[in-house]
Amino acid sequence: MKVALAQINTKVGDIEGNISKIKAWTIRAKKTGAELVLFPELSVPGYPSWDLLEQNSFIQANEKALQALARWVKEPAVVVGFADKNPSRIGKPIFNAAAFLYGGKILAKRAKTLLPTYDVFDEARYFQPATSNLPFRFKGRSIGLTICEDAWNDQGFWSQRFYSVDPVRLLTRKKVNLLLNISSSPFDRGKLKLRYRMLQAHAKKAKVPFLYCNLVGGNDELLFDGNSMAFDGRGNLLGQGKAFQEDLIMVEVPPIENREKWQEPSDIEQVYQALLLGIRDYTEKCGFKDVLLGLSGGIDSAVCCALAVAALGREHVSGISMPSLFSSEGSITDAEDLANTLRIRFLKIPITPLYKTYRTSLEPFFLEYPEDVTEQNIQARIRGNLLMALSNKFRALLLSTGNKSELSMGYCTLYGDMSGGLAVLGDVPKSTVYELARYINRDQEIIPRSSLEKAPSAELKSNQKDQDDLPPYELLDRVLKAYIEEGKDIQRIASQLKLSAEFVFSLIRRVDANEYKRRQAPPVLKITPKAFGIGRRMPIARGYLGSK
Amino acid sequence: MKVALAQINTKVGDIEGNISKIKAWTIRAKKTGAELVLFPELSVPGYPSWDLLEQNSFIQANEKALQALARWVKEPAVVVGFADKNPSRIGKPIFNAAAFLYGGKILAKRAKTLLPTYDVFDEARYFQPATSNLPFRFKGRSIGLTICEDAWNDQGFWSQRFYSVDPVRLLTRKKVNLLLNISSSPFDRGKLKLRYRMLQAHAKKAKVPFLYCNLVGGNDELLFDGNSMAFDGRGNLLGQGKAFQEDLIMVEVPPIENREKWQEPSDIEQVYQALLLGIRDYTEKCGFKDVLLGLSGGIDSAVCCALAVAALGREHVSGISMPSLFSSEGSITDAEDLANTLRIRFLKIPITPLYKTYRTSLEPFFLEYPEDVTEQNIQARIRGNLLMALSNKFRALLLSTGNKSELSMGYCTLYGDMSGGLAVLGDVPKSTVYELARYINRDQEIIPRSSLEKAPSAELKSNQKDQDDLPPYELLDRVLKAYIEEGKDIQRIASQLKLSAEFVFSLIRRVDANEYKRRQAPPVLKITPKAFGIGRRMPIARGYLGSK
Repeated sequence: MKVALAQINTKVGDIEGNISKIKAWTIRAKKTGAELVLFPELSVPGYPSWDLLEQNSFIQANEKALQALARWVKEPAVVVGFADKNPSRIGKPIFNAAAFLYGGKILAKRAKTLLPTYDVFDEARYFQPATSNLPFRFKGRSIGLTICEDAWNDQGFWSQRFYSVDPVRLLTRKKVNLLLNISSSPFDRGKLKLRYRMLQAHAKKAKVPFLYCNLVGGNDELLFDGNSMAFDGRGNLLGQGKAFQEDLIMVEVPPIENREKWQEPSDIEQVYQALLLGIRDYTEKCGFKDVLLGLSGGIDSAVCCALAVAALGREHVSGISMPSLFSSEGSITDAEDLANTLRIRFLKIPITPLYKTYRTSLEPFFLEYPEDVTEQNIQARIRGNLLMALSNKFRALLLSTGNKSELSMGYCTLYGDMSGGLAVLGDVPKSTVYELARYINRDQEIIPRSSLEKAPSAELKSNQKDQDDLPPYELLDRVLKAYIEEGKDIQRIASQLKLSAEFVFSLIRRVDANEYKRRQAPPVLKITPKAFGIGRRMPIARGYLGSK
Repeated sequence: MKVALAQINTKVGDIEGNISKIKAWTIRAKKTGAELVLFPELSVPGYPSWDLLEQNSFIQANEKALQALARWVKEPAVVVGFADKNPSRIGKPIFNAAAFLYGGKILAKRAKTLLPTYDVFDEARYFQPATSNLPFRFKGRSIGLTICEDAWNDQGFWSQRFYSVDPVRLLTRKKVNLLLNISSSPFDRGKLKLRYRMLQAHAKKAKVPFLYCNLVGGNDELLFDGNSMAFDGRGNLLGQGKAFQEDLIMVEVPPIENREKWQEPSDIEQVYQALLLGIRDYTEKCGFKDVLLGLSGGIDSAVCCALAVAALGREHVSGISMPSLFSSEGSITDAEDLANTLRIRFLKIPITPLYKTYRTSLEPFFLEYPEDVTEQNIQARIRGNLLMALSNKFRALLLSTGNKSELSMGYCTLYGDMSGGLAVLGDVPKSTVYELARYINRDQEIIPRSSLEKAPSAELKSNQKDQDDLPPYELLDRVLKAYIEEGKDIQRIASQLKLSAEFVFSLIRRVDANEYKRRQAPPVLKITPKAFGIGRRMPIARGYLGSK
């Protein structure tokens, strides 16, 4: 049997558009001889639909669309994800379900048993879990169909497990010839290897082919990487989908000799591709064609700009230089050089007249106060206002360019450089920004060498350097990773990195104390296991700063 | 037996402070002869601690504190809430637990069975549910102890239920003499009556006294109202805690004749008290003494200012008037009158010089474009920058004053009037703002009558009125309530309010399209069943605007 894995890019809430795409790709798959086509988890309503799932009319529209699709599907058979009503008056009102459509009918429906409720996942908020999942028959085969997390609780694979049942194991006990899993599994750095090993382990243990179809696309902060894959019953790879692109993968089961070699781009290439997808999809799915961003001459805005150009094309990107009294000549030139290299629209708006007017307006009230961070913030917020004015006037999405290290430490200005519709580098540590810059420059110098080499500076006062206020980024990033991504406590971080507990505490305290800024940050494109945003929910008013 | 309900105001994460308070109130209760003292749900770590609950060191600190407290408690017995480790390697790592402490020991531990995972609640994210909850004995009595949501699944009370088990019912089948429930149940308008009826129904059905101790205090967006209560086995009220204040309620069980009369302040008084508590606690718990806010002369900022003065005292509030070319003389006078009436510090900073400088700076780029909303936003953002500069310089928390109706419709400027650390009226519909104003003015005119009577205007262009862009607030608020709070769809709203579906769609579409602004709003004090913020999670990039 020829099976197609159709890893498509759905749009949250766009039921009509998603159905059209499902039909178009079914036709494509049919032409290549497929007898069965898999689409990702919740492909009809889009994933993640969040609280749209609490709207009755939305659930009804998704059900109607599924019914109509079922009537349309003849041959090949189609597996799609949808939100199915829970007929009981007890429990959550819907299931996270998959429908197996064939010959104008719904041949089988299966619901998700394991509902991830951690990090960015809130599935217990919406869905009632399935209490059983049995195989069904199609063309003489016994098929086991699971949804995403259902495959993430293998006792042999995980030492700590969130759930007591393993739906894949239960299915294989019932003798299946084929295991299918439809997913919407978001990307983070390092996850692809894990998925590969885990799914391969399932296939080996079950001794039957395991086919996995994953979503592609950016939806707000989440980036789905595709990378669908298929294994035979010995764990050999039968097929692999592209990373960060829609793709149709054809697989023959039982397999004829067509093993594939596992391909995995380098870590930094994956991050690069993920960010391009995130910029492109957020911009388009929000209805924008153009973006703009401030160009300071520093590395963050340069990398962000290069990403935007690669994602959208140079004609859709504008770079704005807003020099102040404290901007070095080099920075202004670097910004201009970058814009020239990328051949984007470039505007220069000096902020000194504005800054002076603010100083004058506030002078009567500030007389008795020494200069402090206030004056720096005023400049950053002047830039925020100018960028938003251009964004409003030109109907271009403003990208904010701050990196994760700054956002962690609160080394950024709310309503200033934090302004924008999307925080492109908000989950990218400063050291990874450098990696990205070198990756972008791999063939030719796009990011000016001086942006790469000079000491980072906010240039909001004379001779300011980031390193006056922060430890070196290499060191800082190791502490931040241990604390934010790995959830380690101060003592453990200190002993592991051979630092004093006081020093580690001083950094972590600052991370915790700046929660209030991040609460008002734009959506952050997630590329690490723990990003700021919906996946990290921290109280602002509290008495526990970095565990003392 | 004399039982004390100690409804205290805990602080999230402040384990040490919470323990000190628990001890102090235990001593107080002992002096009045209590043999048992109840404290709210999760009183040791504070509620809601969010992802602090994922930090090992935090869980350990809370456990250590509980152990030490257990050794300290002799007589009376004490019930407190804490996060208890799950010893199994399967499931979430902690329970939402209650400990019954007596004579230097932990006499019993019980864990929460029903974990609310909807609206503002994410308990399935953190906690493993209990699978059983049996009564325990104390001084010859059989006691059933449940935690908050455990009491919210009575089959006789609810037509649709989230859970299949009713822990209170299961306990009463085992013959108990006394039912206890410790809670952290947040306020919304109308909820108190519901809680009263529901708890009374439990007592009547079980035919034993039911004692309920609820948290008090503001924690970020959530406002806990206290209102602890106790019923005898026939549903008569034995005692009631104060609303929005710490309180110690003494109850005798089995009851001697001491029935109380149920007291409930008017709806608007409850909202008023809730907002005062929210302002006071957020300010203090974030470490601020002072607040400031912009005074436009309009009703929102006037109400917000009066609330801040009532919450913090006039010496801690500054009002800033920032007139523009488009400010009416009346508005400037109204702002000044309000400041005089409330005797607060008042600053006036005209924004015309700044606005002109922005226009000049942007002129070369805007030449070919007509004036639009951009110019209005620039003014709002100038004010945002000035207010933040004063906030930074004076170390005063900036309150944002926009109401829920504006926030719903996006009739507000991101980084402009939306700036601030706390959105005081962000869950208060415009019509409720008027109600609040009349309540504030009940004894004397604090809000100037002209602020109450004039047509609302953003005053960002000549002769602008809110009603040029929005329907009358009375009508708008009914549509918004039906859509946001009651989750109704367009057809139902239209038929119910006798409006055209097109008109309702035009409003709902606007609510949905402005999600991106709300994503970057400050925390909103929640006073309705559905507030913007953590309780309403909507995708930004999406294809479903108001269900068409």
